[in-house]
Amino acid sequence: MARVLVALGGNALSRPSERGTMAGQLASVRRSSGYIAEMIAAGNEVVISHGNGPQVGNILLQNELARESVASMPLDACGAESEGLIGYMIQQSLGNELRRRGLRHEVVTVVTQTVVDPDDPAFVRPTKPVGGFVTAEEALRRIRESGEAWAEDSGRGWRRVVPSPKPLAIVEAPTIAKLLALGTVVVAAGGGGVPVYYRDDSELAGVEAVIDKDLAAARLAQQLAVQVLLILTDVAGVALAYGRPEQRFLGDVTLGELEGLFRRGEFPAGSMGPKVVAAIGFLRNGGDRAVICSLDDALAGLAGEAGTQIRRDNLRSRAASAA
Amino acid sequence: MARVLVALGGNALSRPSERGTMAGQLASVRRSSGYIAEMIAAGNEVVISHGNGPQVGNILLQNELARESVASMPLDACGAESEGLIGYMIQQSLGNELRRRGLRHEVVTVVTQTVVDPDDPAFVRPTKPVGGFVTAEEALRRIRESGEAWAEDSGRGWRRVVPSPKPLAIVEAPTIAKLLALGTVVVAAGGGGVPVYYRDDSELAGVEAVIDKDLAAARLAQQLAVQVLLILTDVAGVALAYGRPEQRFLGDVTLGELEGLFRRGEFPAGSMGPKVVAAIGFLRNGGDRAVICSLDDALAGLAGEAGTQIRRDNLRSRAASAA
Repeated sequence: MARVLVALGGNALSRPSERGTMAGQLASVRRSSGYIAEMIAAGNEVVISHGNGPQVGNILLQNELARESVASMPLDACGAESEGLIGYMIQQSLGNELRRRGLRHEVVTVVTQTVVDPDDPAFVRPTKPVGGFVTAEEALRRIRESGEAWAEDSGRGWRRVVPSPKPLAIVEAPTIAKLLALGTVVVAAGGGGVPVYYRDDSELAGVEAVIDKDLAAARLAQQLAVQVLLILTDVAGVALAYGRPEQRFLGDVTLGELEGLFRRGEFPAGSMGPKVVAAIGFLRNGGDRAVICSLDDALAGLAGEAGTQIRRDNLRSRAASAA
Repeated sequence: MARVLVALGGNALSRPSERGTMAGQLASVRRSSGYIAEMIAAGNEVVISHGNGPQVGNILLQNELARESVASMPLDACGAESEGLIGYMIQQSLGNELRRRGLRHEVVTVVTQTVVDPDDPAFVRPTKPVGGFVTAEEALRRIRESGEAWAEDSGRGWRRVVPSPKPLAIVEAPTIAKLLALGTVVVAAGGGGVPVYYRDDSELAGVEAVIDKDLAAARLAQQLAVQVLLILTDVAGVALAYGRPEQRFLGDVTLGELEGLFRRGEFPAGSMGPKVVAAIGFLRNGGDRAVICSLDDALAGLAGEAGTQIRRDNLRSRAASAA
């Protein structure tokens, strides 16, 4: 039994074959909720965070396509919409799975704001693509009219790019901690949380950016004194030489070993990199164990029997440092 | 000092002159947040609910206009999106107003589901218009293809109509009550909450409907043992002969007096009717006082000095019934 933060990846919420329909998303969410209900049934305290890429992408595209008729919402507002949408699906579905098992835990979604530093270097060079593809002509018009940044994306067209600053703190963490202590299951920091910054000592304001959901999950886990960070994704774990013939998945590693591999540049920035950085940050700031595994291995991963298991230190080195 | 549910009307969140822009909505929300911060500074426990008409209308319209490119979300999901969006604006803005006053209360939005009865007569005859106007031809196509109900709206075109069933219970009320007891300010039941029903004993499912936000607020107020229900709107209070030369606003009335006027058909179904029904329901189920007043009279209304003040009973009749 532990306090666990479950970070759901995109495949836990929807699959491409479902084409983004509500029925399809609910089917995916139900499968994920079943695993989480089992963790709660086993006595764990669970907080859930999740990605929002396809959902906020669709909301942005709807904003763009309807912009002649409806005032477009900025990215922070679209992120908040996606937190409501995805949180609703998870809290309804997980509540159903818990009741089916005779459990009476309440499940709530807390709309979450994540503080970033306005001087984060990410604001100088936006790199994270969001929304739909447009022609070069349309991208140039948007750059001219709105001051947005757009970039050509792998020959598929132009996409808006936004900054992806580091998460410093989850504003609502104290409330989430109180809810966990009361036995409530909380969905929070969806899509990394809505990015906000302090305009002055007292005033928070939204900013158009996207926060990496695994980094935000690690920050929230730290603020909640979570013991296990369980990052669920679509691969079996952290791989060395990913996609090459000599690829092999890491099983049990220590924080020190993973940091060494990271420094050697083993993990690509776009995919596994942020998950490894999230795991390292979590363990460096008091976490006991980080797990990166596939969604369907969630229960085995939590039990220490699947995926990549990263411990702050092995028992031998901990004993040595205590001596 | 009391436990107060503040029900914000549409004008507390946006004004038509702002044309639905984020900056405009934030300006409206900031004004409303200032009033609420003053209530909290005076020592009241506050829970906030709000309407979502313009916002969910825009989200629906975006769904319709983008439907060739993006799978349209059903109405319950659009409602959840609007809870995230509006909740984010309120929690950010009210948090700012509290910090500016040196107060350290936390403010969170809880995504809310509201249980309705699938046998509610509203499902037989949908009456609540939502989303944008279309031509008769387009409406007929939608009726044929989707089974939706559409109706001609006052010569302005055709609009989709959906059921507006009665709210039976707010699913997340127990958690909201715990948060209030901890001193947290909660935004909940936005837009009446996402309508859901029990498919069987354990399984909740969303349903395409719209719940009146004042009726949902009254139900939540009852579940939270709120003392004062403060319904903020764009008129000075409950009027008799509204819009006619002999119009006059009601000041202090008892529950019995208001019920008598309601039975005589004094209040139109579309506008003041649901607010009066909400106030009556709240007072009949244990509430002390319901206030219906204009947004800018919020503080005077809470102090008993503005708007229509409805008390469960005057002291004389209460003493008489105790004798």
